[in-house]
Amino acid sequence: MPLIPPARSLLWRSLRIHQVYGANTEVGKTVVTTILCKGAHRLWADEETSYLKPVSTGAALDADDLHIQKFAPEINSRTLFQYELALSPHIAAQASGQPIVADKTVLAEISKSATRQASRGPGWLFVETAGGVHSPAPSGSTQADLYRPLRLPVVLVGDSKLGGISQTISAFESLKLRGYDVEMVLLFREGQFQNHQYLAEYFKDQHNIPVMTFPEPPNRIRGDTNADIAAMSRYYEYNSGNDSNLHEILAHLHTRHNNRISRLESMSSKASETIWYPFTQQKDLIPSKITTIDSAHGDWFQTLTPQPPTTTTPPSLTTPPPLLQPSFDGSASWWTQGLGHGTPQLSLAAAYAAGRYGHVMFAEAVHEPALALAETLLKGMGNQRLKRAFFSDNGSTGVEVAVKMALRAVRVRGGLEQEGGGGEGRLGVLGLRGSYHGDTIGAMDCSEPCVYNEKVEWYEGRGFWFAYPVVEYSRGRWRVKYPEEVRGLAGGRGGASYGSLSDVFDVEAREGGEDGKVYEKFILATLKKLTAQGHKFGALMIEPVVLGAGGMLLVDPLFQRTLVKVVRQNPTLFGDNSGPAKAKTDERAWSGLPVIFDEVFTGLYRLGRFSAASFLGADADISVHAKLLTGGLVPLSVTLASDSIFNAFASEDKSDALLHGHSYTAHAVGCQVALESLRELQQTEARGDWDWAKAAHNQTGISSQAKPERAPERRVWSVWSPEFVSWIDQLPSEVVSGVWALGSVLAIRITSPDGLDSYKSSAAKAVQAALLQSRGNPGIDGSDDSPWNVHTRVLGNTLYVMTGQTTSQESVRRLEHSLRQAILEAQNVNGK
Amino acid sequence: MPLIPPARSLLWRSLRIHQVYGANTEVGKTVVTTILCKGAHRLWADEETSYLKPVSTGAALDADDLHIQKFAPEINSRTLFQYELALSPHIAAQASGQPIVADKTVLAEISKSATRQASRGPGWLFVETAGGVHSPAPSGSTQADLYRPLRLPVVLVGDSKLGGISQTISAFESLKLRGYDVEMVLLFREGQFQNHQYLAEYFKDQHNIPVMTFPEPPNRIRGDTNADIAAMSRYYEYNSGNDSNLHEILAHLHTRHNNRISRLESMSSKASETIWYPFTQQKDLIPSKITTIDSAHGDWFQTLTPQPPTTTTPPSLTTPPPLLQPSFDGSASWWTQGLGHGTPQLSLAAAYAAGRYGHVMFAEAVHEPALALAETLLKGMGNQRLKRAFFSDNGSTGVEVAVKMALRAVRVRGGLEQEGGGGEGRLGVLGLRGSYHGDTIGAMDCSEPCVYNEKVEWYEGRGFWFAYPVVEYSRGRWRVKYPEEVRGLAGGRGGASYGSLSDVFDVEAREGGEDGKVYEKFILATLKKLTAQGHKFGALMIEPVVLGAGGMLLVDPLFQRTLVKVVRQNPTLFGDNSGPAKAKTDERAWSGLPVIFDEVFTGLYRLGRFSAASFLGADADISVHAKLLTGGLVPLSVTLASDSIFNAFASEDKSDALLHGHSYTAHAVGCQVALESLRELQQTEARGDWDWAKAAHNQTGISSQAKPERAPERRVWSVWSPEFVSWIDQLPSEVVSGVWALGSVLAIRITSPDGLDSYKSSAAKAVQAALLQSRGNPGIDGSDDSPWNVHTRVLGNTLYVMTGQTTSQESVRRLEHSLRQAILEAQNVNGK
Repeated sequence: MPLIPPARSLLWRSLRIHQVYGANTEVGKTVVTTILCKGAHRLWADEETSYLKPVSTGAALDADDLHIQKFAPEINSRTLFQYELALSPHIAAQASGQPIVADKTVLAEISKSATRQASRGPGWLFVETAGGVHSPAPSGSTQADLYRPLRLPVVLVGDSKLGGISQTISAFESLKLRGYDVEMVLLFREGQFQNHQYLAEYFKDQHNIPVMTFPEPPNRIRGDTNADIAAMSRYYEYNSGNDSNLHEILAHLHTRHNNRISRLESMSSKASETIWYPFTQQKDLIPSKITTIDSAHGDWFQTLTPQPPTTTTPPSLTTPPPLLQPSFDGSASWWTQGLGHGTPQLSLAAAYAAGRYGHVMFAEAVHEPALALAETLLKGMGNQRLKRAFFSDNGSTGVEVAVKMALRAVRVRGGLEQEGGGGEGRLGVLGLRGSYHGDTIGAMDCSEPCVYNEKVEWYEGRGFWFAYPVVEYSRGRWRVKYPEEVRGLAGGRGGASYGSLSDVFDVEAREGGEDGKVYEKFILATLKKLTAQGHKFGALMIEPVVLGAGGMLLVDPLFQRTLVKVVRQNPTLFGDNSGPAKAKTDERAWSGLPVIFDEVFTGLYRLGRFSAASFLGADADISVHAKLLTGGLVPLSVTLASDSIFNAFASEDKSDALLHGHSYTAHAVGCQVALESLRELQQTEARGDWDWAKAAHNQTGISSQAKPERAPERRVWSVWSPEFVSWIDQLPSEVVSGVWALGSVLAIRITSPDGLDSYKSSAAKAVQAALLQSRGNPGIDGSDDSPWNVHTRVLGNTLYVMTGQTTSQESVRRLEHSLRQAILEAQNVNGK
Repeated sequence: MPLIPPARSLLWRSLRIHQVYGANTEVGKTVVTTILCKGAHRLWADEETSYLKPVSTGAALDADDLHIQKFAPEINSRTLFQYELALSPHIAAQASGQPIVADKTVLAEISKSATRQASRGPGWLFVETAGGVHSPAPSGSTQADLYRPLRLPVVLVGDSKLGGISQTISAFESLKLRGYDVEMVLLFREGQFQNHQYLAEYFKDQHNIPVMTFPEPPNRIRGDTNADIAAMSRYYEYNSGNDSNLHEILAHLHTRHNNRISRLESMSSKASETIWYPFTQQKDLIPSKITTIDSAHGDWFQTLTPQPPTTTTPPSLTTPPPLLQPSFDGSASWWTQGLGHGTPQLSLAAAYAAGRYGHVMFAEAVHEPALALAETLLKGMGNQRLKRAFFSDNGSTGVEVAVKMALRAVRVRGGLEQEGGGGEGRLGVLGLRGSYHGDTIGAMDCSEPCVYNEKVEWYEGRGFWFAYPVVEYSRGRWRVKYPEEVRGLAGGRGGASYGSLSDVFDVEAREGGEDGKVYEKFILATLKKLTAQGHKFGALMIEPVVLGAGGMLLVDPLFQRTLVKVVRQNPTLFGDNSGPAKAKTDERAWSGLPVIFDEVFTGLYRLGRFSAASFLGADADISVHAKLLTGGLVPLSVTLASDSIFNAFASEDKSDALLHGHSYTAHAVGCQVALESLRELQQTEARGDWDWAKAAHNQTGISSQAKPERAPERRVWSVWSPEFVSWIDQLPSEVVSGVWALGSVLAIRITSPDGLDSYKSSAAKAVQAALLQSRGNPGIDGSDDSPWNVHTRVLGNTLYVMTGQTTSQESVRRLEHSLRQAILEAQNVNGK
């Protein structure tokens, strides 16, 4: 099967392409398109006007392109896929016995056809759909979904018949739901129902979209073919002629086309003058470094193609470059994406909640999406401790909520007076070095001083952060590398190595072994020293398995498990003398310190499982969720807590309540989208959609030594192939100094030639730049310039690539190809 | 004109009501509805089955209800509004010369009809629409919009003709966009196109909705009426009989109906066990205190009616209570609502952005909704200083961003090393006592210790907060009341009084007067003392005009204006020696301290103007916006800043960047909705939709002394009438101790019998409870139990009511009526 490049949104400066959708079948799409074609040809006489029918059904004699050929022979017309039966394409294709053309083949052929026309010179191209907006294509996809990746500007042919007002508005809404821009509505002037009058007002008021009309075509003259043709010819002559309003219609489309391009081309300049970017030193952010995103679909951005300097080649000698290009969203849009951009289910879920509720205030109130989401999360976590859901807006606020919860619980159980954040007796958090929990100041205070916070005026690190062992694939083995502090206790041993990542994650088996013992010793000794020094703590807070912003580091899960265990088994260390007594009455009560898992990045299938806690085999008392929670659509966070935490806030005094709550707490749109997204992610897992990835990690290559007796659900896996991880590992250490892959995440430590090993390093930038220039394997048409650009973010010298949860196996393999090329290219550039 | 009560979502335990929508006209709605009616009548023989056609067009002989009468004489059928011409109702109504029935009249009549049936006993009611989902009603509204307030469960009759797949899916999407629940899709089994097969699979996969079918009706027998009727009768006999699948269809509707009710009735219990509520002492939050919100539309929630204890009256003797009731959203859902709940424009804007982008990462990227929103806000503010927009997720994070901006700017200009939040040399904020800026810890730190923060472990008030004069209407005058601290400097004078609120807000005129002089003296003296004591400041942060969470207090705008002036004119007080020099080169540079306006609550038309800063006639260096920003749909915040602030972050070191940025920064859905919302709010102002409110405040009553020479745009106004404010003022001081109204906000200080004057007081609770039980004026049917419940939130002893920005004059007058009743009732209850 030929490889098909990712769909490109089609936009050229000199070729105006429009897609003609119909509000219904039989509304006159072909007639209107013929008028548009003839008019464009007449008014832009020195340019090419073309007509394209991607999929046609019905006897060839009746086909729409034949109608065009008959009445507009001056137009270059073409049908890509013709099925003979006059049925909806999905039935015609099946019944005809002809092969069923795949969606991506249809898109690729449209793209080729348009590209060829663009290379011939300026012009117009009208792409006519079949039936209504949701009429099924041969594959069974509805057309509005099938053609969405191209996101061509739409001319919607309205329905002038009885009922046509409804059809036209609904068709319009289905298109908007999928992110199409409807440029105008065209329909026949019909005297009795006067749909055009109503629609003109409606679309102007509600959407500022012009509605324009043509007279109705003449009645068919059944007995006299010549007269019939003559009448229709006169109709076309008139309506594409000087006396019609066609000039105005085409001028509108022409202007909108040009305005779209000028706006796109000016956006990066305007943004550089207007926007204050997050986490960005804007002094160096010249407009050309700002990516202009026109739209996104599935795993792909459609971005404005960087323009080469205009002076290099005379424009006439080159094929005009397409103005948009697809780029793989390789950071999953800052770790948020799961189901892909522009997923109709999520759009419709958002729209439904907006229509049913808008936002409704949540204090002392409840609505279905919030309750159902709380129930789904609590159940999905499989953690018997967690009983309560508190809603906030993002991971950072969710962490602040968790801190407020934990610290109060410790104060109340200890019978301690609150001392205020600045006092000597304040409570800190226990965490891991380099962990990061968010950008609000309270969340920043949970991390040790680092590049992200130390220049923030009010930041104060409040706590202690452990050094910890990391896991990386190196020289054919999965290696656990102890930090300096542990090595001493391990008799100088630097770590351990395992045959498979599943072996590393077999934390129960490892717990009694050397690693487990030395971790416990180290943690207990450290805690004893700290508490002896008078440090007081209010929570153990960790990101299970992976430290995200802290450098995309895979932490030994056994170390995190041991941390939880030691804290819980030694409550008196923290002044918690009720622990053992409490445990007798309620084994789900927190002990020692409340344990907070920040699963914002690592949870909800990012690493392949609903909860990242399951990798540790440990249950949190408080658990924070965001990012993937809404499948990557809108901000929402949920902090889950145990009853033992919740009850610490019960009091006769209403001001003892948890004093946190944003205006949009549990906003219905976010909750509904999250519900839809979690359902889809859970079904994806249940359907076995990731079996290809699981199989690869249990059968071949670096995972071949996975113990066969380990139950499949105990195994870990990644969409990144063992072969690819192994290939990276075999690169010279001057190129790559470490790699790991788990779930949808791949992290590669690029060796820094300047020796810098931090946020300040730019070692990974060369690979990042090469990825953005990637070309794929030869495309379907044999050309080798099919784009396979990958848009990534780097963290210092770590290059990471993160797929969505629905990214296909083929896409991952293509990404691996791009990565190989980019690493080698960057290596050459750097002269290694 | 009779007063029509707000629309109620119709739900009774024993009456199953369904609305039959068609995917198109001529799809067999009436035939399907007849089958449903006949089947329900047969299978629930001891119950009443009714048919209702709200609006019918066409010769009476052809009307749908006559079809029912002919073929289902056993059914109680009725048409509410009949137009004789066979056209779409909006044209038929105009052309017929008959009166055009208003939407709310249609809703009220459906409601009456259903209520009567419910009182007669259990049964089924099928409400058949006309044409397709968006076919216009007589008023011109499309039906999907017209009937939305009832939110009846929908049976969608699909289209079995060619093109019908598209029509059915689009119609479904239009209904979902408006928050309808489509219970099932019914259509004819048609052999050639087999739409039912495709649709059954589609709706099961995508939406878990069953699609069920009936055979096609027999062809009409044109010449022989008797034979025609006989054939059709046989068709009905079969399809409503035992051998059809009707039992299954009705059983599904029946089960869904019951499930909906049990779920609704269990939600408050489940919520009380599962949800952790914001700002709520949950110990006392028994399920009956939790409001179950089924949906919301316009200004109204539809909430589960509190059930009376079942033992009071034998159920058979009473009319069964409707399970849902409308409640006016009197807190504007925690101050967020502007355009009303369930606004289709906002739903469609959200869906469009979701379809076009999903969420796309924003670092070093730009997309149209974000850029356009930044441009719209910067322009709309009319503040020449503001040049940059930084996006975050909510007001609290927006404030943290503002703090990070301001403090850095002060550090950099002063050439000061950062000392960290805990150090002696740390920078604090200058603010007003009792001000509140959000729930994250950094935002909490901007406020002085109060009930909202003092029990939060890590909270530390960082700054100094001024006492300030408040404005209230009292004894027929608008009175400015000095705080104790100012009285001393004013020679013991307690304040001043003005004839109109516009006079109070004429700050330029007042600046040179007594108030202005004493404020300046007070502020300067205080600042000199503070700085002499070594206090260091990094920002002046105020909520312009109104302190929201701090107690809904109207602050003298002249005091806030003077604060800004004194800070800017005395830069050296703050160690800012570059001020005068800077001012020469850039008059837009900050001077003294960066001035932050937290407009989260007060901006974007809450008080009647785009920016609340305009009331002070002062421009901020940093301005924070949220809540109404998205018209009340999803969380989003924007922090605007001047170039002089922005440039403080320019550096060769990339870690000097503003280190803040959530994953969903500038999420496309929020930005698109905000754009749509701001456009609508600006147009509302431009169209003069608030002229009725403005006129009332410039012509009558308490504002009569407004100076005639003052330009209209300099006048202030409120939707709350001067008469009403005056009525409250005239209540005895043991009942009400203060009142003010501005824009959409009304605040009433209820006198606390226990003398408590804080968050801990519950003086306002009695009025709040009475409002929730309010009945309106006599409704259209003469009954006086038409609901006019008002759902409010209180702040200690302050009861506030806040309308949306599109709330009608009639609604505000009805609210005033409810408030009068509730205050008097509560007064009686309290025995005053």
